[in-house]
Amino acid sequence: MNKLKELLADLEPAIADIINQPGSPRAVYEPISYILSLGGKRIRPAMVLAAYKLYKEDYTPEVMQVAQAVEMFHNFTLLHDDIMDNSPLRRGQETVHIKWDDATAILSGDLLQIEVYEKLAEVGNVEILKLFNAMGRELCEGQMNDMQFEQMDVVSNADYLDMIRQKTAVLLGFSLQAGALLGGASAQEGKQLYDLGISIGLSFQLMDDYLDSFGDTAKVGKRIGGDILEKKKTYLWNEMWSRLDATAHQEIEAVYTKPEVEIIDFVKTKMDESGAKDYTLELAQKYTSKSLTALNSFDTPSGDKTYLEEIVKMLAGRES
Amino acid sequence: MNKLKELLADLEPAIADIINQPGSPRAVYEPISYILSLGGKRIRPAMVLAAYKLYKEDYTPEVMQVAQAVEMFHNFTLLHDDIMDNSPLRRGQETVHIKWDDATAILSGDLLQIEVYEKLAEVGNVEILKLFNAMGRELCEGQMNDMQFEQMDVVSNADYLDMIRQKTAVLLGFSLQAGALLGGASAQEGKQLYDLGISIGLSFQLMDDYLDSFGDTAKVGKRIGGDILEKKKTYLWNEMWSRLDATAHQEIEAVYTKPEVEIIDFVKTKMDESGAKDYTLELAQKYTSKSLTALNSFDTPSGDKTYLEEIVKMLAGRES
Repeated sequence: MNKLKELLADLEPAIADIINQPGSPRAVYEPISYILSLGGKRIRPAMVLAAYKLYKEDYTPEVMQVAQAVEMFHNFTLLHDDIMDNSPLRRGQETVHIKWDDATAILSGDLLQIEVYEKLAEVGNVEILKLFNAMGRELCEGQMNDMQFEQMDVVSNADYLDMIRQKTAVLLGFSLQAGALLGGASAQEGKQLYDLGISIGLSFQLMDDYLDSFGDTAKVGKRIGGDILEKKKTYLWNEMWSRLDATAHQEIEAVYTKPEVEIIDFVKTKMDESGAKDYTLELAQKYTSKSLTALNSFDTPSGDKTYLEEIVKMLAGRES
Repeated sequence: MNKLKELLADLEPAIADIINQPGSPRAVYEPISYILSLGGKRIRPAMVLAAYKLYKEDYTPEVMQVAQAVEMFHNFTLLHDDIMDNSPLRRGQETVHIKWDDATAILSGDLLQIEVYEKLAEVGNVEILKLFNAMGRELCEGQMNDMQFEQMDVVSNADYLDMIRQKTAVLLGFSLQAGALLGGASAQEGKQLYDLGISIGLSFQLMDDYLDSFGDTAKVGKRIGGDILEKKKTYLWNEMWSRLDATAHQEIEAVYTKPEVEIIDFVKTKMDESGAKDYTLELAQKYTSKSLTALNSFDTPSGDKTYLEEIVKMLAGRES
């Protein structure tokens, strides 16, 4: 993890800079500072720098501004998603709409979004602005698909994969693409790195779904089985559902009247027996392999691949 | 009104273009199309064109894109403000968060905001992007100030004017400045037109406050006295309050237990007797005169001032 640690150390002043929100009235700036200071892995700005390192060593102001912009945009989406999803907690702390109120969370989010574009205006690269906008549009579409899927009984895994591509992967794709372009990548290389970001995002999200049911509480850092109790339409759930017959569907529905421990055990058994468990893990690993193969064959005569390589492995190998 | 009609006719295809929202999933695009199709005066895009006409006659694609961007941004603010202010109606129709729900209104607004920046990226002028961002930041600050003022007993008129400058005037200022810059204005001329937009915005908002209490229902197009019944901290109210003593304040508080007609009559009498009525109207007219004087002395050898002149007079003279 030495390479990632190095990137995070490089990012520290830039992150401190965006947490510092001196504007007035305080009521609209404090929530921005609050959500940005809750932490998180800072994986998106690290990916911007890692992609830049494929080409050059010494950062320009522009690459740091893009790193700030993606972290701010990610937090903007969290701020508004938490209202839409009615989530009370974020990283163990109260969400903005709970700590303050809905109106404050909406408005602080809107202002944070404008601050993202202030960073992009400082970068002053219209091509990167256009790529960012295309990404932002897809992310909004993905959030709407996600909300609609929660109201549906059955979601196909093709639709689900497309949704997580939009909701999670495109921002990782943009982070790599923009970092690379600022390092001097060609348009074609930029596109290859975007695709690499998509693979990383898909494997990350599939692994997330997998670990929520089959992870180790100590390693994952949260209670196991939350998705199952919510009947969340994850890849794992959809795959299980599509592999089972009507009788099994009824058995699953019936178990939801029982204690939580029994529900979780029963559904995990069905996920395992149906083959959905192994299939999901294999798919996540397939995307990780795809990412590493693409990175291996990527030609960077002047740069250093080890930063990005470490990030791919870290995101894939959170638990096995 | 021939000049304004001409601008509105010029705008028609550009407005039809932004109302047309063919994206998917429909659930996030339909509310955008809906709010943009509710109409309104389209005064902001008309101001972009009117400022451009100070310099050049034939529009470029860029000036139309900025005209679209300001109309979209205005509707984005309406969409989110209606959630924050809990407003059920907009232009006589259900607001988005009522017709759909809060989550849809938040997300559609976020997407509309991204579409604004797509238009600005098409324009491809980083200077205009920076001016837009500075305007957007102030507008968010103004909305927060507005919400906070509603919780306060007393608001100074200096603070109130600053709030309406942020919440209403800066977008008019940007519209003129950006239209002019795209027509070939110097930075200094752009700034002068921004200031002109601020004057127009202040006179417009003061007149709006005035007419809500002292207008003619038939001409204003809405019921008179709504602000009074809500005890809204308008310029008119604040000015009255600051001119009255504690006894009069108590009389006003006491009247709010009586029927609505009596409340409105009583408060209007106090606004009149205290001098607040005349003072507010005079201040609105002062800003209008300031706008017209600035426009008269503005040097535009190659352009046509009559478009902007007509807009200033129309906004000021909605009723006398």
